Amino acid sequence: MDFPHLHILDADQFSRVDLENVLTGTARIEKLLGANKAFGLLDGKILASLFFESSTRTRLSFETAMNRLGGRVITTVGFQFSSISKGETLYDTMKMIEAYADIAVIRHPVEGSSRIAAGAVSIPVINAGDGIGQHPTQALLDLYTIFKEKNAVEGLRIGFVGDLKYGRTIHSLIKMLRHYNVEIVLISPVDLALPESYRKELRRENVKFEETEDIKALWDCDVAYITRIQEERFADRAEFERLKDSYTINRAFLLGSRKPTTILHPLPRVAELSTDVDDMPTAAYFRQAAYGVAVRMALLMLCLKQEIPAI
Amino acid sequence: MDFPHLHILDADQFSRVDLENVLTGTARIEKLLGANKAFGLLDGKILASLFFESSTRTRLSFETAMNRLGGRVITTVGFQFSSISKGETLYDTMKMIEAYADIAVIRHPVEGSSRIAAGAVSIPVINAGDGIGQHPTQALLDLYTIFKEKNAVEGLRIGFVGDLKYGRTIHSLIKMLRHYNVEIVLISPVDLALPESYRKELRRENVKFEETEDIKALWDCDVAYITRIQEERFADRAEFERLKDSYTINRAFLLGSRKPTTILHPLPRVAELSTDVDDMPTAAYFRQAAYGVAVRMALLMLCLKQEIPAI
Amino acid sequence: MDFPHLHILDADQFSRVDLENVLTGTARIEKLLGANKAFGLLDGKILASLFFESSTRTRLSFETAMNRLGGRVITTVGFQFSSISKGETLYDTMKMIEAYADIAVIRHPVEGSSRIAAGAVSIPVINAGDGIGQHPTQALLDLYTIFKEKNAVEGLRIGFVGDLKYGRTIHSLIKMLRHYNVEIVLISPVDLALPESYRKELRRENVKFEETEDIKALWDCDVAYITRIQEERFADRAEFERLKDSYTINRAFLLGSRKPTTILHPLPRVAELSTDVDDMPTAAYFRQAAYGVAVRMALLMLCLKQEIPAI
Repeated sequence: MDFPHLHILDADQFSRVDLENVLTGTARIEKLLGANKAFGLLDGKILASLFFESSTRTRLSFETAMNRLGGRVITTVGFQFSSISKGETLYDTMKMIEAYADIAVIRHPVEGSSRIAAGAVSIPVINAGDGIGQHPTQALLDLYTIFKEKNAVEGLRIGFVGDLKYGRTIHSLIKMLRHYNVEIVLISPVDLALPESYRKELRRENVKFEETEDIKALWDCDVAYITRIQEERFADRAEFERLKDSYTINRAFLLGSRKPTTILHPLPRVAELSTDVDDMPTAAYFRQAAYGVAVRMALLMLCLKQEIPAI
Repeated sequence: MDFPHLHILDADQFSRVDLENVLTGTARIEKLLGANKAFGLLDGKILASLFFESSTRTRLSFETAMNRLGGRVITTVGFQFSSISKGETLYDTMKMIEAYADIAVIRHPVEGSSRIAAGAVSIPVINAGDGIGQHPTQALLDLYTIFKEKNAVEGLRIGFVGDLKYGRTIHSLIKMLRHYNVEIVLISPVDLALPESYRKELRRENVKFEETEDIKALWDCDVAYITRIQEERFADRAEFERLKDSYTINRAFLLGSRKPTTILHPLPRVAELSTDVDDMPTAAYFRQAAYGVAVRMALLMLCLKQEIPAI
Repeated sequence: MDFPHLHILDADQFSRVDLENVLTGTARIEKLLGANKAFGLLDGKILASLFFESSTRTRLSFETAMNRLGGRVITTVGFQFSSISKGETLYDTMKMIEAYADIAVIRHPVEGSSRIAAGAVSIPVINAGDGIGQHPTQALLDLYTIFKEKNAVEGLRIGFVGDLKYGRTIHSLIKMLRHYNVEIVLISPVDLALPESYRKELRRENVKFEETEDIKALWDCDVAYITRIQEERFADRAEFERLKDSYTINRAFLLGSRKPTTILHPLPRVAELSTDVDDMPTAAYFRQAAYGVAVRMALLMLCLKQEIPAI
């Protein structure tokens, strides 16, 4: 399994072959986990978990991934970066980290900072979210969730619901889906529509997509990717009040679906996804968390150029 | 050694047999530690250390316990729970943790939250203190300290001193002691007496107990469990001023004891326990910390249904 | 290799033989690291990483060191010391730590606190900086950097630049250099000159040293140890404005050097060391970070009385 990248910085870097390798590698990791054979694959390796901005879910997912492989983790969160508060640049901080760790994951509030971090060092750097920029490992775990729950990605009709304008995870996932023969349904208030640059890209790549404000369009989808609509995104608060209830997904609504629509959500959720959906067999969002660990285990292995054993 | 519980949530759940199993299991752990044979017993297992409220002593005790067994730890403390600050429920947070870890320990400021956490998941959850509620593992380590220092619990006269009204550790320990044939001496200002509900329970279980304001009652006790009297607990501050000195335990006072009174304290201590007691052979409170690690190692093993080897 | 110390508390405790043992031990560690044979040397041991004051660089260096040896780490940073905030003394905190860990590293804002911490326990305590006091492991890593980059310490001409009055790392390193036959050049504004007590010590030990305000004195040095000049150290701000530029080291300045002057800096740097120096072969400050891990690995081994294998 050839993985030509040192770093994981954005969704664009992944070719179709790369994506297939991540999916295959993750499936192997899941088998290894099931057989208790993953532990020890990264014995003696150290992951630097650098969260300049707090993100418990993502941080613990990576740290779990490294621990499940037998590796070790050094962590620092938020204002504990004392050198930074003394005026140290990210470049200098990374030169230090390079001397300590074998691989680094970084979350940073400033867009593009993960690329600066990667440029400073010769160890792999994984972008775990930089500002309004990319969050590629989230997109990969979303893709794996679709693959795992549906047995394939090809041929699916995938609906995106909610804030398509600012939703970083949606943008990254759409960029990856252009490598597959899928139909995309974009469901959002016009104020929160997918930015034109992304639609242009979809057209250029000949990806079929539709746009609508009508949430019922989900009833024809194989997969529904739900995100939160945040009040602060609206110029007109009355518009938010008008829309928020119609973009709440619950069990009663989903029972109207003409397909077994698999529900994804990047979490955390608030009101947009009702808890009465949780025990529906199509509710995949809690399983996503476990897939996320497996995906990140695969990524750690691939970036460190370690063969993932097939069993 | 049969341990019928998945979770450890409160003192009430422990039968006499359960308590004996914890004591026996802990004694085995101490032997394994002495022979350098504990490390590796939980190889590849992950503990999620979830401290929604800071408690360094308890957190490090659990994390040490897991590390001494060869397991791994993922940690998050206080406001680092970024999802929670975004409005995520404890239920959803725990669904994530279930996907990451094999067992979780939780400290939370809200009473009853550990039960909610346990209800969300299929992995064991250990309550490390939830508000004014329970702190069962502290009570177990107190019980083990008595057992270890006195070679038995049966037949002892055990004095509780200080704030018996709000002292969470005292409430949990008293609930466990009702399974033993002991005499309990409750020594406190009337304002800080043990709540009637606990006294009613002691009567129902036919546990002998006495109540007094006179600290000298300790001189007839085999064990003295000291806790702090906090000024803010008193409606009348003058009452606090009147009492605080008489509830300060020091070496001179303890030399009046008619028995070798073993001194316990849940720590941290402030003025209520003088440092001139520290080097008395009966001062057990620093040894309590080491017993605490062994007790928590035993609990991790029992909850994960791992046999604790007898050597 | 005999290491007669339990704790590492200050630079004064190191004899010439001790220093040689640290250098030799570190060189062995570097070989073991290169051969992937360091991992496992401290299997099952636990380091308590106690940072009462934040210092990401130093903390991660020690935690990396312990992990590279196969040991485990329990960490607590800043206000997470909840017991301390409840009024617990450092003595009591350390009695707890002694029950949990095999060795402790402590950073504390109050001078002398590491000695108090060490006095409380029977496990090794390493001072990672206490207020304006000592930071001996930084001095040891500086010494090792000189030794490694120059193949020896004896006979070198070593310049110290910047704030020699308050620079804790400089004070500790100068104390160690008195054991070697070196020439020391002290380059600073008069307001920030090395305190008389240190100069007196150098005279008593017959260490050759010169003092100057002229930065060009560096051009005759084998090693230049650069530190930051902080505005707040000056009584007269105009004096700071006058001096700050002349104490900025950059590539153009260094090209004037008559020797291959190796550049050290304790980091983080701000303006006093230009980034255009970074890719000069004599720029050793980023390599210092990696040496720092190796030095701390050696110190962990030596304090725990573990033989460092020679390969």
